[in-house]
Amino acid sequence: MPGERLVVIGGVAAGMSAASRARRLSPQMEVVVLEKGDHVSYGACGLTFLVSGVVPRPEDLIVFTPERLRAERGLDVRTGHEAVEIVTAQKIVRVRRGSELFPLKYDKLVITTGGAPAQSIPGADRPGVFTCNNLASALELRRFLDEQRPRRGVVIGSGYIGLEAAEALRRRQLDVTVLERSENLLEDMEPEIVEQVAERLAAHGVRIQLKAAVNSIESASDGSLSVVHNSRSVLPADVIVVATGLVPQAELAAQAGVLLGSSGAIRTDDRQQTNVPSIYAAGDCVETLHLVSNAPTYMPLGTTANKQGRVAGENAAGGNATFPGIVGTLVTKVFELEVAKTGLSVASARAAGFSVEAITVNSFSQAKYLQGKPLRAKLVADRNSGRLLGAQLAGEEGAARRVDVVATALTARMTLAEFVHLDLGYAPPFGPVYDPLLIAAWELLKKLGRRR
Amino acid sequence: MPGERLVVIGGVAAGMSAASRARRLSPQMEVVVLEKGDHVSYGACGLTFLVSGVVPRPEDLIVFTPERLRAERGLDVRTGHEAVEIVTAQKIVRVRRGSELFPLKYDKLVITTGGAPAQSIPGADRPGVFTCNNLASALELRRFLDEQRPRRGVVIGSGYIGLEAAEALRRRQLDVTVLERSENLLEDMEPEIVEQVAERLAAHGVRIQLKAAVNSIESASDGSLSVVHNSRSVLPADVIVVATGLVPQAELAAQAGVLLGSSGAIRTDDRQQTNVPSIYAAGDCVETLHLVSNAPTYMPLGTTANKQGRVAGENAAGGNATFPGIVGTLVTKVFELEVAKTGLSVASARAAGFSVEAITVNSFSQAKYLQGKPLRAKLVADRNSGRLLGAQLAGEEGAARRVDVVATALTARMTLAEFVHLDLGYAPPFGPVYDPLLIAAWELLKKLGRRR
Repeated sequence: MPGERLVVIGGVAAGMSAASRARRLSPQMEVVVLEKGDHVSYGACGLTFLVSGVVPRPEDLIVFTPERLRAERGLDVRTGHEAVEIVTAQKIVRVRRGSELFPLKYDKLVITTGGAPAQSIPGADRPGVFTCNNLASALELRRFLDEQRPRRGVVIGSGYIGLEAAEALRRRQLDVTVLERSENLLEDMEPEIVEQVAERLAAHGVRIQLKAAVNSIESASDGSLSVVHNSRSVLPADVIVVATGLVPQAELAAQAGVLLGSSGAIRTDDRQQTNVPSIYAAGDCVETLHLVSNAPTYMPLGTTANKQGRVAGENAAGGNATFPGIVGTLVTKVFELEVAKTGLSVASARAAGFSVEAITVNSFSQAKYLQGKPLRAKLVADRNSGRLLGAQLAGEEGAARRVDVVATALTARMTLAEFVHLDLGYAPPFGPVYDPLLIAAWELLKKLGRRR
Repeated sequence: MPGERLVVIGGVAAGMSAASRARRLSPQMEVVVLEKGDHVSYGACGLTFLVSGVVPRPEDLIVFTPERLRAERGLDVRTGHEAVEIVTAQKIVRVRRGSELFPLKYDKLVITTGGAPAQSIPGADRPGVFTCNNLASALELRRFLDEQRPRRGVVIGSGYIGLEAAEALRRRQLDVTVLERSENLLEDMEPEIVEQVAERLAAHGVRIQLKAAVNSIESASDGSLSVVHNSRSVLPADVIVVATGLVPQAELAAQAGVLLGSSGAIRTDDRQQTNVPSIYAAGDCVETLHLVSNAPTYMPLGTTANKQGRVAGENAAGGNATFPGIVGTLVTKVFELEVAKTGLSVASARAAGFSVEAITVNSFSQAKYLQGKPLRAKLVADRNSGRLLGAQLAGEEGAARRVDVVATALTARMTLAEFVHLDLGYAPPFGPVYDPLLIAAWELLKKLGRRR
């Protein structure tokens, strides 16, 4: 609203989207962005490309500098400013800058405090140990690689960030080992897809150790590191990347009386508003509605953060936007392999109470006579309703974009019987005459028919 | 049904799908396929790849030979057999084989007589003039190119087959000119997309002459050809490909009392059944329901033919399958450029009675810092309902598969307001953080908002 002050806590995806949207809708509103780090408005999903060198300069990832945001958008962006307390009774945020502590009045507040590493590992603060979840840490890692020329890299965690980090280190010629505490790579991915990922990693010389629960990181007097796991195994390393996933950073909000969901993330309505009047939240610190399970879920992703931020910003500026939820779409690239999922896996569908049937088909990304690349697709459906519940794909061509077709169908709550008739485009360079997704749907439909 | 005889007229996409499906469902049914040509069961959409040499051997396009279909599937496939009359009163098809004429009894009949060249050009029967719509003609063209080494190629017609043929000739080092009688390439494609196609063709040295209405093809005594167009212009040529589009070949059906639609193609219900009991039809000879305009349309495409054939075969064998219709998805590749459309163009949406609003956005196929390829997307929506009506895309990466997202949304009758919230996958190698489709939907939604 004109004359009001919007304070946004956090200046990356969700925060900058909120600030920019509010500014556009309400040019008279004062918009202050508090960012505890040194950088705002950068492409956090590209950090591993900065580490590998595919993206040469950090400036390439930075969409706007604080100076440009101030000059061109009229946003009061303050880096090095950490919000340490929200006092709702007085509508102030207590802000720390260096050793200084001062109050900042707000009329509307958007909390985008993001996520923090899920696992706290003793020794993770030693030199040579990095995360890859913000620009500063990615730059430190890159500088370390440039200056120290480490030979042996260990990545702790095998989520998509862990695998992207492993690839980045491998591309820089390091010996790379990934330690994963569970029985499989890529939590919540189907074994048929994980198998392809594992093959691809092996082909590129990345070692994987599963069921490796890390206890601590030690360092020797010569500066070399080692990872102690499963209580007694010791893996030497010259550089370590901790990529054990994210948990929501919601303490600041919680202390102000903002309700959290069972995931530990901030609960909002579909307008990104919290239970506290005038306080909105978005991005990696919130949970969101999963449109397939119809339950709140915590799935921190950049694209969701941007969209939620925009909605929060619009509403904070007096608008009325909604974010209906997600269907859990995730795409990543493991060397040449495109890996994609949307909706529910078999396990998550069962956990959500569905009676699950699934099928995996192996097809190709082009007509056979053009020698397309192998493409594997797994579809998950509900036996009772025939409703499509999820899909996962892997292949060198056409896996990532194909999953969007399923994401769209999930949003529309399509049944397999409807999905199988989709008029998907066909030409020999783009797929077989029956698209792999349609082949899978057809086979799964037959399987459902036999079961009933 | 066991003991019955199914006769299928036509042995390519729709026909072989129908025969195979019926055979699988009803192993006791006798299935006879009548094909007037020499080949059945081949990938007709790959013919231009055979001409260019990308597909080296005709065998690569042939899925099954008549011998294998007989031995492995128990299908009585008869090449060189032309159905010349259907006598419904006696349930017989009169068949010509060479000079022989004989009756063949049927219990169920599936008509897949396909399409024929839309325009009859005087002189199109001269040596050196070819079509590219069946395996025999594509092979003749290829042999001519191999043996005669023509230098100057002319393609008459600039639909996607015409452009694929032009590319094939160009890849074989010919000088190529495309003659198009209308004012633009690629009928029903938007000018913003056509512009990109024209640029691409020009970059590869393909000449385009628009508003060139062909009158006749002449040949000189030395065997060289010329195309007379616009009553007085003469274009010399050594080889000519006629690709003026298809009209349904429905005379055989019509003479038997099968009703045609206003498109001139056979009208069927959603079970692919015609008005005549026991007679089904599928493929390039039928019209089909367009799910966006909700009107019958004629859009002959291989993938639709296969799906309709399967439905016709299933029902002819006593099953109960349906083909709900199409949304008009078409993808093609013009050299490196992927070109895609689905739903209604601006013109066709207006013709269908919608109040049209459209937008074109220029985006990229990858995050900017990875230097993706330019990707252009045009979206069409209905001003009154906010419903998405169609999309067209062009770009070197990600255009073809992205159109399937819109095809799925059209099937679900999504509005722009729903579409803009789709949870499409994001990772830097696969697109910008806001997918080009979502950017376009967002911009179009704003435009609609302003209009109301």
